[in-house]
Amino acid sequence: MTIDETNINSVTSGDIVLTGDRPSGCLHLGHYVGSLRNRVLLQDKCKCYLLVADVQALSANFDHPEEVRKNVIEVCKDYLAVGIDPNKTTIFIQSMIPELTELTIYAMNLISVARLERNPTVKAELQTKSFANNITSGFLNHPVSQMADITMFKATAIPVGEDQLPLLEVSNEIVRRFNSIYKSDVLKECRGILGDVTRLVGIDGKAKASKSLGNAIMLCEEPADLKAKVFSMYTDPNHINVSDPGRVEGNVVFTYLDAFWSDKAELEDLKNQYKKGGLGDVALKSMLHNCLSHILEPIRSKRASVHEKEVLEVLMDGTNEARKVATETLRQVKDAMGLIYQ
Amino acid sequence: MTIDETNINSVTSGDIVLTGDRPSGCLHLGHYVGSLRNRVLLQDKCKCYLLVADVQALSANFDHPEEVRKNVIEVCKDYLAVGIDPNKTTIFIQSMIPELTELTIYAMNLISVARLERNPTVKAELQTKSFANNITSGFLNHPVSQMADITMFKATAIPVGEDQLPLLEVSNEIVRRFNSIYKSDVLKECRGILGDVTRLVGIDGKAKASKSLGNAIMLCEEPADLKAKVFSMYTDPNHINVSDPGRVEGNVVFTYLDAFWSDKAELEDLKNQYKKGGLGDVALKSMLHNCLSHILEPIRSKRASVHEKEVLEVLMDGTNEARKVATETLRQVKDAMGLIYQ
Repeated sequence: MTIDETNINSVTSGDIVLTGDRPSGCLHLGHYVGSLRNRVLLQDKCKCYLLVADVQALSANFDHPEEVRKNVIEVCKDYLAVGIDPNKTTIFIQSMIPELTELTIYAMNLISVARLERNPTVKAELQTKSFANNITSGFLNHPVSQMADITMFKATAIPVGEDQLPLLEVSNEIVRRFNSIYKSDVLKECRGILGDVTRLVGIDGKAKASKSLGNAIMLCEEPADLKAKVFSMYTDPNHINVSDPGRVEGNVVFTYLDAFWSDKAELEDLKNQYKKGGLGDVALKSMLHNCLSHILEPIRSKRASVHEKEVLEVLMDGTNEARKVATETLRQVKDAMGLIYQ
Repeated sequence: MTIDETNINSVTSGDIVLTGDRPSGCLHLGHYVGSLRNRVLLQDKCKCYLLVADVQALSANFDHPEEVRKNVIEVCKDYLAVGIDPNKTTIFIQSMIPELTELTIYAMNLISVARLERNPTVKAELQTKSFANNITSGFLNHPVSQMADITMFKATAIPVGEDQLPLLEVSNEIVRRFNSIYKSDVLKECRGILGDVTRLVGIDGKAKASKSLGNAIMLCEEPADLKAKVFSMYTDPNHINVSDPGRVEGNVVFTYLDAFWSDKAELEDLKNQYKKGGLGDVALKSMLHNCLSHILEPIRSKRASVHEKEVLEVLMDGTNEARKVATETLRQVKDAMGLIYQ
């Protein structure tokens, strides 16, 4: 999911970008192409905040809290490994900014349950029979919690997929309601920085790459595993001999080359050659393997050099910085609401 | 609503009591007989916390925040005036304990939307057509917020009316779920200390006494207004001459005498005399007026002597004390959830 050029060009030095992840496991190439790569670009354009959403992760993994804590560290290692620079991007832990929960609670007074239930993500879950009667209040209120994350840092530009635009609408609705009721301009509306909706498929070509499905190439993949995964990629089952004509559509190797091969003209030639016949899967996979090794090797080696102690320092420094901003925004929020007693 | 004797006797020095009010206006005799009087008794039996629920008040008055702040001060003046002793009862402001919002957000992951919608209070609101589609997320989650209020202070005994028992059930459900998932005993279940369900009617005999209906006798009522209100009380419209037999049921003067006249045998004689005829409304109202003056005069004079500065000091001291307890409970909660990073 590369951010649309026009859209990313709209980000100026006056913008504030907020992105984040639920720490649900180590990150993979899907995250890299979908967001990490862009975050590295964005941090040179304007102030960036990067939220490690452990509270939100808990709402899905509330019965495995120890996983969440571990994954916070792993995800942050991935951030540093791909080149997110803590001097440019403030990386922080959601649960350590209690002001976020305060703002969430206030915002919950400004949105109806019916409105939250119209959220497409919630609607989809409600249609899943097994979940229908068990949707938690925490889950229903994710958009409110996200509104707090965004507005606490006065973020103006939020990189999202099209499916997440309704969340930003909810956020902006609450912002307008807050500012109108409290005759304030403390909270800021945001805009979505839209990415390409294509998601990186798994190496089996069947679904979105995901760690739990075992069909993703992890950023920390060992060289031998990387090779094995690339060479097990789904191509065209009818492309048996090198000389056979092959299909490019649905061919996972080409999907990955599209995402990672920098010389687009050269890639076009390869596709034509493959379609005509004369380009074998082994040769093709070797090219992709070299390309991915080239990308992953420095990430893997940087990742290996980062110790947990250093990761914790980065997280604590970022969290302290984020908390200062949050404290000031919440002071303004409470002032607008008349909740200052001293 | 006097607390049932058996029930109040069950409160021991090992208990922790939590009560609270939404600061929606000055308090009146209904509050006095329903809760304030009992709080004064309870503070000599065990540790008591008294929550001024400004965040909850905001969810009903979110568009009049300035009212909420003003009423926090007024309500606390009433507390001090009736004899709640800040050395025995920790009086604190909800919005100044951010830990409460943190615990609320975590607890929201442990309860389904469907379960919250089965809350009788919410069901009643949902049946009110005008509110059906507008019930806010804040309102739906009141029981969760109340669970946080209760458990944060490890309160074991909660004075309530029978209609509030379902709220305590929700609270205890979340507590059991938390303790079971996180293999913890940090949060404590509580029991309700049930009051007499009779509510003090308004002076018009038509409804519950309420400041907004203008049918309540306020704790800060001026002597002339007190007299005017008592003498305008609804009695028996067919009791025209002193010698006429009169009705005691539905006669507001007797309802108030039942609540405030300490000599129950004497009151029984008065009722019999009234029923037979020979006791006039003016004489009866004079008795009630004297009785209420006797109760309200020291409250009014104490209230007049309490300055806003002193009230704020009491609130800040109480809030600081409550916050220390909340900080420690939340540390234990986060520790149980594995959310400690340092």
